[in-house]
Amino acid sequence: MMVPQGYRFAAGYAGIRKVARDDVALMVSDRPAAAAAVFTRNRVKAAPLILSARHLAESKGWCRAIVVNAGNANCATPDGLEAARATVRAAAQSLGVGEHEVLVSSTGVIGAPLPVEKLVAALPGLAANLAPEGFEAASRAILTTDTVPKTASAEVRLRGTVARITGMAKGAGMIHPGMATMLAYVFTDARLSPAEARRLLRGAVEESFHRVSVDGDTSTNDTVVLMANGAAGAADLRRLRAGLYEVMGELARAVARDGEGASKLVTIDVQGAASDRDAVRIARAIANSPLCKTAIAGADPNWGRILAAAGYSGAIFDPARVEIDLNGFAVCRAGMAAEFSEEAVKQSLEGKEVNVRVTIRGRGRGRARFWTCDLTEEYIRINASYRT
Amino acid sequence: MMVPQGYRFAAGYAGIRKVARDDVALMVSDRPAAAAAVFTRNRVKAAPLILSARHLAESKGWCRAIVVNAGNANCATPDGLEAARATVRAAAQSLGVGEHEVLVSSTGVIGAPLPVEKLVAALPGLAANLAPEGFEAASRAILTTDTVPKTASAEVRLRGTVARITGMAKGAGMIHPGMATMLAYVFTDARLSPAEARRLLRGAVEESFHRVSVDGDTSTNDTVVLMANGAAGAADLRRLRAGLYEVMGELARAVARDGEGASKLVTIDVQGAASDRDAVRIARAIANSPLCKTAIAGADPNWGRILAAAGYSGAIFDPARVEIDLNGFAVCRAGMAAEFSEEAVKQSLEGKEVNVRVTIRGRGRGRARFWTCDLTEEYIRINASYRT
Repeated sequence: MMVPQGYRFAAGYAGIRKVARDDVALMVSDRPAAAAAVFTRNRVKAAPLILSARHLAESKGWCRAIVVNAGNANCATPDGLEAARATVRAAAQSLGVGEHEVLVSSTGVIGAPLPVEKLVAALPGLAANLAPEGFEAASRAILTTDTVPKTASAEVRLRGTVARITGMAKGAGMIHPGMATMLAYVFTDARLSPAEARRLLRGAVEESFHRVSVDGDTSTNDTVVLMANGAAGAADLRRLRAGLYEVMGELARAVARDGEGASKLVTIDVQGAASDRDAVRIARAIANSPLCKTAIAGADPNWGRILAAAGYSGAIFDPARVEIDLNGFAVCRAGMAAEFSEEAVKQSLEGKEVNVRVTIRGRGRGRARFWTCDLTEEYIRINASYRT
Repeated sequence: MMVPQGYRFAAGYAGIRKVARDDVALMVSDRPAAAAAVFTRNRVKAAPLILSARHLAESKGWCRAIVVNAGNANCATPDGLEAARATVRAAAQSLGVGEHEVLVSSTGVIGAPLPVEKLVAALPGLAANLAPEGFEAASRAILTTDTVPKTASAEVRLRGTVARITGMAKGAGMIHPGMATMLAYVFTDARLSPAEARRLLRGAVEESFHRVSVDGDTSTNDTVVLMANGAAGAADLRRLRAGLYEVMGELARAVARDGEGASKLVTIDVQGAASDRDAVRIARAIANSPLCKTAIAGADPNWGRILAAAGYSGAIFDPARVEIDLNGFAVCRAGMAAEFSEEAVKQSLEGKEVNVRVTIRGRGRGRARFWTCDLTEEYIRINASYRT
């Protein structure tokens, strides 16, 4: 994957994971980059988030490097902040940058002390191995129960040149409970001010990661970072926004598709609600319903469960005006069963992608799109013994 | 089980279920009984709920009989209200009572027409077989995926005599999503006015069924009915309330214990929150968290997930003041890992009952108790193909 200009990456095994698989990633911009971050809304915030937020404030939105470790969340331990500081110090020294120019993320088990000395020992080696080609290895090092790395890229034409936007993400386990950490790092060589970076990132998160039903049910460590180092020059903001939404949307869908134990990517479209807010409520209720998600796992066109989830979502609507389509098949009209071939719908639901469309007939113009995955027995197997 | 005086019950197979297992229950008071009901808060309400609410309004809170069928929810179909009316008419005629003195409930698949002619044909036979001993058979006929019938009973001393309170319930599948219908019918031979019955029932539901994390995530058919026929005389209201809370609490715990695929009953106690409301938020977030519930299924003392669920519950608290105990073992103190024997806690969590206690140290006095079950692979197996 072609990465934006002026970024280098490295990954290595520090010994934090029990299995010998890369568990540290270092991501560096060769020049100061405007940076913005969105952190979890959970009241319990892991130490790396607290330190990273401080650093962004101290640097007034400029950043040179991000350190990420997998295998341990560095959350709810006595010396978490000290451990995060030691990690940042080691990275800053290896790179010759200021500590406040370094951000840090951790993902993994909560409540076990981070073996920070291993991380500190590994960082000089990573700093020595930085290269644009390290992107793929870094995108693998940040994973936990993910089955595939998640990366996405887009190009945006500038005056006379091209800016690139490239991102990597780590899945939120099964997305709905969202407590399994979701991480994403997006890099561009377009030039942005820190204020522009913040505004763009917030808007893009709203339409991507906050639409995989992560919001509300947030982890202690959720973090999304955008870096813009300007190596390719100034960008048209409108085009850059489009590219950023594309990359982050793709990463969010990749997270949903790879939910723990998931066999399908489910896209939920709601239209005709009284407001966008109500449309989001309905979409989220369906995306979060274990009963809807197990029915989809079983390729069962159980539209009654979808109607009932809409009913308890808190949105105001007339059930007699509801239409539901599954993969384009009309299964519910006027709040009641439509005539459909059970066999044909079932066969269609056995595919890897399922579209659930809920339309409320009337004058409402509220719409929303959400992504989720199905809920399978594999999810339970993974989560019943994650820690032990 | 000894039932209260003046009640008779019958059950039979009308042919609504595919398997030949009783699917209709008739429950009758020999004299007019004060009655109250709590129905689902779901915007999508099944026809029997709409008709039953009307009847209770027309009769000003008096009732003679309840008809319940399993196998079909009579929800989201074109002629649902007509089907419910025909059912009630058949019961009223067989019993020689007014139609508005009959309530009706249905549970099962949503969106498929109720084969009402089968129900109508079965009711005269049931009416002919009514007996106090029919209670057990009735309590089985209302079940769907439940593995055991759920009944509870208490006695309350009156002046010179004894009043009995006896109830039956049908589980809400796995309770959290709550869309699988929860039904409960509680009968007493104490004398109450319809207003007293309403007040008592509402309070008791709040402390029982609304504490198995059903509220919010309600089904289209959830119904709880209380009948009080006065056959044993007037009751001391305070004592009667205590008995009612005991019976309904026991039924609610039975529902949690028998959640679909459940292997454990989980009791969640929260204390020290800023308010009871905040305590309920924390308890509900834990009770609804698939990650917490799968960890409990795997006997994994993963207190980090419990802390994180509290963190996203919306309650305001200082994470550094949180203590978590699992089955009496201190696993988290001051928001961090306590010293505990992993092996000992794990062994304890392998039992059939798990207690999760969250204490927030400080001046808060908010408390709440919730019940739920663990989340197992069996849940997925049941729900991936419920309809087909």
